[in-house]
Amino acid sequence: MKKTGIAIHGGAGTILKSQMNPELEKNYLNGLKQALESGYEILKKDGNAIDAVEKAVIELENNPLFNAGKGSVFTNTGKHEMDASIMNGENLEAGSVCCVKQIKNPIELARKVMEKSDHVMLTGEGALDFAKLVNCKIENDNYFFDEFRHKQWLEIKDTDKFQLDHSKKTPPEKFGTVGAVARDNNGNLAAATSTGGMTNKKFGRIGDSPVIGVGNYANNSTCAISCTGSGEYFLRAVVAYDVSSMMEFGGMNLEDACNKVIHERLLKIGGDGGLIAIDHSGNIQLPFNTEGMYRAAMDNNGLYKIEIY
Amino acid sequence: MKKTGIAIHGGAGTILKSQMNPELEKNYLNGLKQALESGYEILKKDGNAIDAVEKAVIELENNPLFNAGKGSVFTNTGKHEMDASIMNGENLEAGSVCCVKQIKNPIELARKVMEKSDHVMLTGEGALDFAKLVNCKIENDNYFFDEFRHKQWLEIKDTDKFQLDHSKKTPPEKFGTVGAVARDNNGNLAAATSTGGMTNKKFGRIGDSPVIGVGNYANNSTCAISCTGSGEYFLRAVVAYDVSSMMEFGGMNLEDACNKVIHERLLKIGGDGGLIAIDHSGNIQLPFNTEGMYRAAMDNNGLYKIEIY
Repeated sequence: MKKTGIAIHGGAGTILKSQMNPELEKNYLNGLKQALESGYEILKKDGNAIDAVEKAVIELENNPLFNAGKGSVFTNTGKHEMDASIMNGENLEAGSVCCVKQIKNPIELARKVMEKSDHVMLTGEGALDFAKLVNCKIENDNYFFDEFRHKQWLEIKDTDKFQLDHSKKTPPEKFGTVGAVARDNNGNLAAATSTGGMTNKKFGRIGDSPVIGVGNYANNSTCAISCTGSGEYFLRAVVAYDVSSMMEFGGMNLEDACNKVIHERLLKIGGDGGLIAIDHSGNIQLPFNTEGMYRAAMDNNGLYKIEIY
Repeated sequence: MKKTGIAIHGGAGTILKSQMNPELEKNYLNGLKQALESGYEILKKDGNAIDAVEKAVIELENNPLFNAGKGSVFTNTGKHEMDASIMNGENLEAGSVCCVKQIKNPIELARKVMEKSDHVMLTGEGALDFAKLVNCKIENDNYFFDEFRHKQWLEIKDTDKFQLDHSKKTPPEKFGTVGAVARDNNGNLAAATSTGGMTNKKFGRIGDSPVIGVGNYANNSTCAISCTGSGEYFLRAVVAYDVSSMMEFGGMNLEDACNKVIHERLLKIGGDGGLIAIDHSGNIQLPFNTEGMYRAAMDNNGLYKIEIY
C-alpha cells in the first residue's frame, strides 16, 4: 500500500531525559505536534508534498525553541545568519539560501529561489536583495532575539569556541536544525530543511542544511531526506544523496540505506547526527546515532509518533 | 596496471573552431599545457595528488584566459566574486570557499579551509577574514581587471542578463570554470575546481563549483571529479557524487558512469557541460555534451593530450 505521510525533526544531539525539565519537554513535544499536524493537514486535503514540508518548517521556524527562523542562535558578531533549502522530488527542482539575515522564514525564501529565479543557491546580502524583490517578510534583529540564545552566546562570545546549538558541552553535541519530508496522494516527494547555524559562528561558515544532496534531497523515484548533525561531516559524506544512491544504484530499501549511512559510513569519518526520510511508497525512517533527536511522523496508515530520546 | 596521471579542464560550452582565431587558440593550448605539465611534474617526483591538482589550478587561475582567479568575470556591481573547492580522496577531507573577493588564488584558500579550519565551506566577507588570518595572498581589484572581461560586462551590465562566461549568445553557452583531478604513485586521488562565476551575476549566486559532491569530489575507492557546466542543473543532479555512486553502488566502471551522467541524466533535466575524471586505477575520462571543452590529460602510460573541440 502506498502511503501518504510526513516526518519532521527539530535537531539531534546530546538530549538526555535526565537533563530535561518536564515543562520544557512538554513544550518541545507540543511544538513538534503542531508542526507535524499542520503539515499533515495539507496532505489530508489532497495538497502537495512541497506545501506540506514548507508549512511544517515554517511552524518550526516560528517556534523559538528550535534553532531556525525565530530562535536562531547568535553569530560571533551578535547577529543571526540562517540557511535553508527545499527540493521538489517530482521535477528535481530546488532552492537554497545561505547566511541570510533578517528573513522571517528562510524556507519561504528558499522556495522563492526555486520558483522565481534561475538559480538554486543564493547567499548573503545578495539573497537579501532577492528576498526584497520577491516580497519575502523581513524582520529587524529584535524579532530574532531570544533570551536563552543570547545567554548561550554571551557565555562563549569572547572565546574561539562555537557551538552547534544550546549544549553547554565542549565539544558541542547538539545540532540545531529543523526539517520535514513528505509524500502526498499523488506520489510526489518533497524535503525542506532550515537552520540558524552554530552559536558564535564566524567566517561565514556554511553547514550541510542549505546544500542540495547533503542536508536536503527529494526524488520521487527514491526518497526525500532532511538531515541534522555535524554539518562538516555530512558535507564530506554527501549524506542525503548517499541514501538515495544506495536505493537507486544499489537496490537497497530505505531502512537499510538509512542505517548504513547513519550508523556505519558517517560514524566511520567521525560524524554524528540523524536524518528523517520517506520513500516512494511512503515508508518513513528516523535514524540517528546521537542520544536523541526531536522527531515526529504521521501517515494515513495509522502511524503517529512524537519522540525525543 | 595502476597509472599515475592528471587531467585538467578550462571550461566547456559553445566553443567552435570556426569562431576561434589561431593566435587565441594557441594561447589556450599553451595555457592548458603549462597547467598540465606543472601538475604532472609533482606526480613524477612522487608528490601528492592534492599538491598536483592545487598547482595545476593555480596555473589556470593565474592565466587571464580562464574564468578563475585573474581573468574572473565581473559581477553586476563590477566586482569579482570567486568560488573554489578541493577534496582529498585519501581521507575525504574537503575545503571550499564561495563568493570570495580579492583572493589571488581561491583554490589555495579552499585548501587552507580544509587543513586549518574546523569547517568545510566558508563564504563572503567571513571567508576573507579567514584568508587574512591564514595569510592567503590578497590582491586589489585592479589585479583582477581584464579588458576583455570588462567589455563583456559593459555589454550587459544594465540588463537583467547574466552570462556563464564570454559567449555573446543568449542564453549563454560557455561555462567558465577550471579544474584538475589526479592520481599519485601512492594511489591517492584528489580534485580541485575554481571559478569566477557568471558575468553580471547578482544575488550572491553560488553554482556547482564550490559544492563538494557536485562540482568537485574525490574518493580513493572510486574516483576524483571536477565539473564545468550549467551550475544550477549540476547542483540538482549532484553530478560528481552521482558518478562516484554509480561506481560504488552500481558496480559501473568510470567510463560508463561518466557517460550516463553527462549524456543521459544531465541532459534529461536540461543541463549541459562536462567533467574530467580519474578513477582508482588511474583511468581518465573527459566527457562533455557541449561543442567543446578546454581539456588536457597526461599519465605515466603514454597518454598525452590537449584538446578543445
